[in-house]
Amino acid sequence: MAQEKVVLAYSGGLDTTAIIPWLKENYGYEVICCCIDCGQGEELDGLSERAKASGAAKLYIEDIVDDFCDNYIVPCVQAGAVYENKYLLGTAMARPGIAAKLVEIARKEGAVAICHGATGKGNDQIRFELGIKALAPDIKVIAPWRNDKWKLQSRQDEIDYCKAHGIDLPFSTDQSYSRDRNLWHISHEGLELEDPSKEPNYEHLLMLTTPPEKAPEKPEYVTMTFEKGVPTSVNGKKMKVSDIIKELNEIGGRNGIGIIDIVENRVVGMKSRGVYETPGGTILMEAHAQLEELCLDRATMEMKKEMGAKLAQVCYEGKWFTPLCDAIQAFVKSTQEYVTGEVKFKLYKGNIIKAGTTSPYSLYSESLASFTTGDLYDHHDAEGFITLWGLPLKVRAMKLQENQKTK
Amino acid sequence: MAQEKVVLAYSGGLDTTAIIPWLKENYGYEVICCCIDCGQGEELDGLSERAKASGAAKLYIEDIVDDFCDNYIVPCVQAGAVYENKYLLGTAMARPGIAAKLVEIARKEGAVAICHGATGKGNDQIRFELGIKALAPDIKVIAPWRNDKWKLQSRQDEIDYCKAHGIDLPFSTDQSYSRDRNLWHISHEGLELEDPSKEPNYEHLLMLTTPPEKAPEKPEYVTMTFEKGVPTSVNGKKMKVSDIIKELNEIGGRNGIGIIDIVENRVVGMKSRGVYETPGGTILMEAHAQLEELCLDRATMEMKKEMGAKLAQVCYEGKWFTPLCDAIQAFVKSTQEYVTGEVKFKLYKGNIIKAGTTSPYSLYSESLASFTTGDLYDHHDAEGFITLWGLPLKVRAMKLQENQKTK
Amino acid sequence: MAQEKVVLAYSGGLDTTAIIPWLKENYGYEVICCCIDCGQGEELDGLSERAKASGAAKLYIEDIVDDFCDNYIVPCVQAGAVYENKYLLGTAMARPGIAAKLVEIARKEGAVAICHGATGKGNDQIRFELGIKALAPDIKVIAPWRNDKWKLQSRQDEIDYCKAHGIDLPFSTDQSYSRDRNLWHISHEGLELEDPSKEPNYEHLLMLTTPPEKAPEKPEYVTMTFEKGVPTSVNGKKMKVSDIIKELNEIGGRNGIGIIDIVENRVVGMKSRGVYETPGGTILMEAHAQLEELCLDRATMEMKKEMGAKLAQVCYEGKWFTPLCDAIQAFVKSTQEYVTGEVKFKLYKGNIIKAGTTSPYSLYSESLASFTTGDLYDHHDAEGFITLWGLPLKVRAMKLQENQKTK
Amino acid sequence: MAQEKVVLAYSGGLDTTAIIPWLKENYGYEVICCCIDCGQGEELDGLSERAKASGAAKLYIEDIVDDFCDNYIVPCVQAGAVYENKYLLGTAMARPGIAAKLVEIARKEGAVAICHGATGKGNDQIRFELGIKALAPDIKVIAPWRNDKWKLQSRQDEIDYCKAHGIDLPFSTDQSYSRDRNLWHISHEGLELEDPSKEPNYEHLLMLTTPPEKAPEKPEYVTMTFEKGVPTSVNGKKMKVSDIIKELNEIGGRNGIGIIDIVENRVVGMKSRGVYETPGGTILMEAHAQLEELCLDRATMEMKKEMGAKLAQVCYEGKWFTPLCDAIQAFVKSTQEYVTGEVKFKLYKGNIIKAGTTSPYSLYSESLASFTTGDLYDHHDAEGFITLWGLPLKVRAMKLQENQKTK
Repeated sequence: MAQEKVVLAYSGGLDTTAIIPWLKENYGYEVICCCIDCGQGEELDGLSERAKASGAAKLYIEDIVDDFCDNYIVPCVQAGAVYENKYLLGTAMARPGIAAKLVEIARKEGAVAICHGATGKGNDQIRFELGIKALAPDIKVIAPWRNDKWKLQSRQDEIDYCKAHGIDLPFSTDQSYSRDRNLWHISHEGLELEDPSKEPNYEHLLMLTTPPEKAPEKPEYVTMTFEKGVPTSVNGKKMKVSDIIKELNEIGGRNGIGIIDIVENRVVGMKSRGVYETPGGTILMEAHAQLEELCLDRATMEMKKEMGAKLAQVCYEGKWFTPLCDAIQAFVKSTQEYVTGEVKFKLYKGNIIKAGTTSPYSLYSESLASFTTGDLYDHHDAEGFITLWGLPLKVRAMKLQENQKTK
Repeated sequence: MAQEKVVLAYSGGLDTTAIIPWLKENYGYEVICCCIDCGQGEELDGLSERAKASGAAKLYIEDIVDDFCDNYIVPCVQAGAVYENKYLLGTAMARPGIAAKLVEIARKEGAVAICHGATGKGNDQIRFELGIKALAPDIKVIAPWRNDKWKLQSRQDEIDYCKAHGIDLPFSTDQSYSRDRNLWHISHEGLELEDPSKEPNYEHLLMLTTPPEKAPEKPEYVTMTFEKGVPTSVNGKKMKVSDIIKELNEIGGRNGIGIIDIVENRVVGMKSRGVYETPGGTILMEAHAQLEELCLDRATMEMKKEMGAKLAQVCYEGKWFTPLCDAIQAFVKSTQEYVTGEVKFKLYKGNIIKAGTTSPYSLYSESLASFTTGDLYDHHDAEGFITLWGLPLKVRAMKLQENQKTK
Repeated sequence: MAQEKVVLAYSGGLDTTAIIPWLKENYGYEVICCCIDCGQGEELDGLSERAKASGAAKLYIEDIVDDFCDNYIVPCVQAGAVYENKYLLGTAMARPGIAAKLVEIARKEGAVAICHGATGKGNDQIRFELGIKALAPDIKVIAPWRNDKWKLQSRQDEIDYCKAHGIDLPFSTDQSYSRDRNLWHISHEGLELEDPSKEPNYEHLLMLTTPPEKAPEKPEYVTMTFEKGVPTSVNGKKMKVSDIIKELNEIGGRNGIGIIDIVENRVVGMKSRGVYETPGGTILMEAHAQLEELCLDRATMEMKKEMGAKLAQVCYEGKWFTPLCDAIQAFVKSTQEYVTGEVKFKLYKGNIIKAGTTSPYSLYSESLASFTTGDLYDHHDAEGFITLWGLPLKVRAMKLQENQKTK
Repeated sequence: MAQEKVVLAYSGGLDTTAIIPWLKENYGYEVICCCIDCGQGEELDGLSERAKASGAAKLYIEDIVDDFCDNYIVPCVQAGAVYENKYLLGTAMARPGIAAKLVEIARKEGAVAICHGATGKGNDQIRFELGIKALAPDIKVIAPWRNDKWKLQSRQDEIDYCKAHGIDLPFSTDQSYSRDRNLWHISHEGLELEDPSKEPNYEHLLMLTTPPEKAPEKPEYVTMTFEKGVPTSVNGKKMKVSDIIKELNEIGGRNGIGIIDIVENRVVGMKSRGVYETPGGTILMEAHAQLEELCLDRATMEMKKEMGAKLAQVCYEGKWFTPLCDAIQAFVKSTQEYVTGEVKFKLYKGNIIKAGTTSPYSLYSESLASFTTGDLYDHHDAEGFITLWGLPLKVRAMKLQENQKTK
């Protein structure tokens, strides 16, 4: 009988390296490693050798950056999806994309299980596993950190375990921030951040963004265009979305844009504190929102805001591959038909300052907003409007007066 | 028979001055002027003489600053009420307070009508009139700008009309921005702002705030305390809310905080573009939100966010004195029981940077967020949680697989 | 110069007949009558002669029943759109369909105006006019009942006016209920209904439905099938939607189903009381909802419920042709992919009693709901779930205990 | 050292009887039984002897019927809280009341643990345990059905276990529906109900309600009064709420009112099918809603509807003792100030037919709804209203036309 296979979400780091011999030892599986590139900007050279040296049967290196941009980031930008007013969902959006790719590889390989290295107190375990359940309910999920057979409690334990299994690779034993990075953002947790009464040590912490204090003295202008809600160019250069984000990461990063410090509520029930850097994403979402101010009517904006909050929740909670998530995206997509135009920002030391927006579908009418009267709107119309708008109030007030008199 | 009286919302400016003779001429009313101080910081000396010289029978000068703070601003801060993601409701919150005071004076004077100088294309006419309808449905409202008998089309017309009626006071004929100021904010409309493709001329425009570019090079720290959601001190000094806002206006103003550029949707149906300065208010609302991150659970935060959006809408639309507004405030108030603690910010050239938050009721638990395992939370619990959390997804995926096989 | 044309929404009744000479006299228009059949079941024979005898240049008779069913009713059924918990939107859904047809005729005829006979206190004026504004903003709307030139205050006035203009047709002068009928429903207002303390005189009032007391003693079973949320058959017979509604009107009507007595809030600000009969519609919406209980997951149901309420509001308020309405429909449509199956009801004297539902996509799992344990769900999983589900509560309770001890 | 105590939620039935020796055997606890009367109408005579014969150290019999009515039922009636459109929350509302009483007894007795007999697949385990966590986070919860030490798999196992521990009491071994009853309702699950394609066997099933087919041929009228949203009398007799519900259960029960057949989504993630009888509750909630139609304005009704849905969710999910639940109740309570008046219904074979509603605070105005024109409302006002109401639509339509022409 052929050996059963497991697909392992593999980064080449210490944790996922130690999992390789552990899977073989405890399950007897052939281990197929899969390193998924979401734009985390890590060195992938030599990874294949490293995986093999660690006992993997095979290594897939899969670039899903454009899939990540087009099918996860763009819908969230269009929706204005932000979790708890601040978090731009960088990690949350990437997880279902990774899960989908893991399932694809598992099917191709005929694997019976998928293994991930997420811990038992975080959101990512949920996002990976719900993604897998939704796409491949028959595939078993293995999460070593929640598994009784996993006895390794520290980095040193892991290093020793690797060595004992013949894996002799260089790993750092430093404790640093716990980080997750992809094209859209980088998140930081741990160390001083674990105490919300402490100011983050930004000098030490930040990787994509210059702190506002050190950003250039001179403002920098940036223009972006959108077509039907999809970003199409930066500073006049047409680019695909992933290149736009890369470009805006550069621009925003040097100007101190998009640093967020948040105490957020995890799905698993506790609060945690993190710092996120999303330089390009912050600019992009702000620009999209700015354009919508011109192109969407009030009622659509209001409802879309609720839908954006809901999409953020659904995405954060790992429920991307659900009918609700699809339906919200259908709603949002329908609103983007005329979100076309150009937005200009002035960036200055952490500030995004509006510098002019135009759209062929702008619903702003200068004459309507300012002139005294016209065909579209006569001041007398307001009279009738107010009478009807205030009618329920007035009827109620009269009723209360009437009751008071009776007493 | 005694002459009937009208109460006029009076500022001493050209518009409301010209209204005095117009009311006498067209309605035969005795005109009771009422200048209501919401902290707009204008010179009130000599206003009484000015009103009399304009033909008013009487002038009331009413300071409602503390009422404005305690009964309008604080509930909105607690609710996190922001209109269309940006506007902190400075004018919208003040209008019902003014309406209530006008009604109070009208009752005291036995007036049959109230007159305001708001135009026929804006939101303020609605806010004044709905306030009056709700509190005094029997009192007539006169809005000259929507009135056929009002023939004055320009500032020069008004000046001429005043002179023809024996009012010879100095008025400027300059066209400038259209502004509304009170303790909480100042709004600007008109001139270059009427074209959303143009960057605002901040150098010329701003009155409360230093532009970020000109703000100090050195960051400034500020601490605020709250008790049950009410701000109680700044930088260690206990103060009443109105003094806290004044103090924060100073601090925020010099550091370039709280400048908003928005295309918003008016109640009367058109989009308009404005710039708002709310230096102290922006800091205060951010600080309150920051404290709530620690003190409120996720479910309460989520629902409260919807309520805040709804309160912003209700307030913006002039529906302050309604059962819905009362009910929303009751909801919000109930959530504030444990919103007590201290927030520290670092302000730097337009940036509000979190610098530490503490609360005796903080729901953040460092051990829960970070340690491996404990009494409260065992990693194995996550296993069960994910099984149930993902159960609907999995059942659905299995059903779809089953249907696919049948085909 | 050619005479300008107006398209008149024409029923052949007294009101719209009198409008013909009034339009000619006051505007000099050529009057194009348009009678739109939404399934109101009226006699249309001889209408053409009648229109010509009344001075119309032309009469269009347009059957929009299937358009009404497919593009207005089906989306509302799928959304579960019900206004103020009771009203199934019969009139509200028809109005935009009529407006669209009027615009189509106006374009074909090159007309400059559209005229409707809705009164100035109701919702229909809004629905007609917003429909026309959205589809043809350049076309003028004429609403005689709100027009100063319209002097006719009673049916007798109208009859006299017609006679004076050479129109001698038989019209009743009886005052009865004010009614609106189409394929979906009939509404009744007026007479005793104007006093909410009075029980409706159902014997006199009802036109489509037998009162429950007089309905058959023997229950009647009915089965319906749906495919992707669209009704496809009744009692085993495949039919188009309009025929399904006709059939269900018969069945529901004889069994006393679907009588609603409501005090509703009109868009124009006042409450009004009406009785609606929607026999087939009530069954159809209930059946669809019943099927969704099996086929939709909880989260989708919850959000869809909000969307249904919103669609009802939008439709009731005349805002059918808006981006928001489109977006809501896109959401709803997305949820209907697997709403396929069969529903059986027992009807008895006003009661709809569930008698069995099946679907190939049913998410109900008998084993999951009832058996002790299994692969999908282990009782121990509940342990972990509850720990995490209750974690925020517990942390909060501990914090409060801790604070109490300190005091 | 004194023996530790556990408080056991005890009914005297087989399950909770078997738990007594099991707790003693496995934990060494002294078992304090607590039988909580929520109006389930069971025989409580002899229960004390029964408990002692089963090895309990003590039995508390606690009547919480009025607490249940005043603090759980009334807030839910006022909120119109209904889960998934149908379920009136009978069991869900009772659980937190029971949990609170168990905690009270546990504190009084100095117990270290609370034990309940709810199964591992249902909602009740969650409701009991979240209630206990929120009120007494330090108290341990024991749920035998989820406990590895619990080996009893059938009623026969339990009987044998009891006998082996010297408990020789009469118990039935019949399998019947799984039921939960209290003053508000009775729920049924199991047997034929487990197959949603089957019609319930109502003849066999129903305990409180006559099936519509067997209800009297003659309609019965009932009147109810409310003061500030609280029910105060039935048919002219003033009664406390619990007596009102009892009376309405009689009246509704004999007229076939309030039978619900639902496939609902449990908190633990699966769908289950149940039948609920809520005869009095259905009438009471309908009457309250009917009165609100007259007394609440549209905007309040709309928001309150969302709050009611949210309260239903919160209550269903066991989150009664949370800040969110408190805040929702504060909202709802605020809306009830003027919900005062009388409602009359005609009941007939399962139908609730409106027969007249009156209120001193009714916002319905006959003259406003029907007369042609008046002080409050002039038909011309509608003109202005529609212009502004439709302005965003029109501006958008013009913009699209303009773009089309350009192309």
